[in-house]
Amino acid sequence: MINHGMILIGAGNLACQIGPALKRAGVRFRQVFSRSEESAEYLASKLGCGHTCSLQKIDGKTAIILFALPDDILPEVLKSGVFNGRLLVHTAGSVPLDVFRGYTENFGVFYPLQTFSKNRTVEISEIPFFIEANNSENENLLRKLACRLSSRVYTADSDTRKKLHVAAVFACNYVNHLYHISKKILEANEISFEALRPLIMETAKKVMEAEPGTMQTGPAVRYDRKIIGMHTDDLAGFPDYQEIYTILAKSIHAHFINSNP
Amino acid sequence: MINHGMILIGAGNLACQIGPALKRAGVRFRQVFSRSEESAEYLASKLGCGHTCSLQKIDGKTAIILFALPDDILPEVLKSGVFNGRLLVHTAGSVPLDVFRGYTENFGVFYPLQTFSKNRTVEISEIPFFIEANNSENENLLRKLACRLSSRVYTADSDTRKKLHVAAVFACNYVNHLYHISKKILEANEISFEALRPLIMETAKKVMEAEPGTMQTGPAVRYDRKIIGMHTDDLAGFPDYQEIYTILAKSIHAHFINSNP
Repeated sequence: MINHGMILIGAGNLACQIGPALKRAGVRFRQVFSRSEESAEYLASKLGCGHTCSLQKIDGKTAIILFALPDDILPEVLKSGVFNGRLLVHTAGSVPLDVFRGYTENFGVFYPLQTFSKNRTVEISEIPFFIEANNSENENLLRKLACRLSSRVYTADSDTRKKLHVAAVFACNYVNHLYHISKKILEANEISFEALRPLIMETAKKVMEAEPGTMQTGPAVRYDRKIIGMHTDDLAGFPDYQEIYTILAKSIHAHFINSNP
Repeated sequence: MINHGMILIGAGNLACQIGPALKRAGVRFRQVFSRSEESAEYLASKLGCGHTCSLQKIDGKTAIILFALPDDILPEVLKSGVFNGRLLVHTAGSVPLDVFRGYTENFGVFYPLQTFSKNRTVEISEIPFFIEANNSENENLLRKLACRLSSRVYTADSDTRKKLHVAAVFACNYVNHLYHISKKILEANEISFEALRPLIMETAKKVMEAEPGTMQTGPAVRYDRKIIGMHTDDLAGFPDYQEIYTILAKSIHAHFINSNP
């Protein structure tokens, strides 16, 4: 099946990293689809294949269709009917395998647990891939494909994958938002975000070996009311950050009370 | 003054990193104080000096007293009166310079913006140090001392330093708590935290160059109600994480609406 090549639906951050990685691993791309002509053309040129902005112009009946789309777009695109009967694979954390049911008899999921940017090359071989498929033949195919990219390939059902995604939202999207909040606080005081970068990197490095629950420091651990009160007062200009500060301080303290009763 | 050596009050995470770094930079330590005999002895052996658990046995009248204590302990220790009239310096983000006023005529702050663990060696030369003192002579002395350790030495008044600390609480303590939450979610589903480590490292690496506000991805950016609803349902076993999930999703979405009206 893989010999029939692959068609990539989407040309966003994930597609721009996984597409070239698959090409380097020997996958032959036949076409890239994106609603944006510019994005489709850019990625197609990297993959050495054609591109289209029209679902009706997707060809290669026997190629694997790899969807790399925002979660809420995939069901809409499937309704077009142009993918019916093909081997369909998506790359999303919280979209169940069953999204494909009724459209085709061969389908699966190929989920890389990583955050992708268009212009940052990530080390693909270290990314955990989570595979699911409607039968063992398709599962084996996707597993082999993932093994060409990474040494960390696992099977996970849709429910497990969704839990992985929830955890990833905290560890990535929400962490990044806290970085953003810290930057806004510094900005309001005319301090460069550069001052925080060594701290951010060390905080991440610490949990590469240790467990985060055992590494916690700062005023919330001992619930230092005086410091916490001063800090929330200082956030008066940012009511939403004030609320986030308070709720996270309480959650940290609750963890430490429960761990050290 | 620095030729008279230094006495370190505290033997916790910060003391265990800054003490040895100062020693390597040529500072002569005279004594370590800690309420814990074991901690005092451990650090004193690293610094090649004596140790005590009794405030009354602190000697070296002319040495610099460097406090590395939890924020709420420092005022209590000062009340003992044994430090009156000496050159007193603390290392805390949210403790004002004025904490020393009334106890002595020479005092300052030496604040390294970093998270410290007892057994993890951090690259001291990359840490931003923020200096404050009651007069320019003491400020120069502390600045010179910090410059022996790091190339990033700044002056900051107590209010600015407190703002730095609030930002650091978000970027370090709260980020670490989100790592912990993600680990608990995985644990409840018997998935190893190892699965998230490449994501955590990449999320931190991304903001070493880029700005976090421009790098955000995930369901909260476009406020994908279906995914957000599924995720909060999945967190039913963790009501406090559910609340944190919701409040951060709203905060991210608000940022993106404000940035892209």
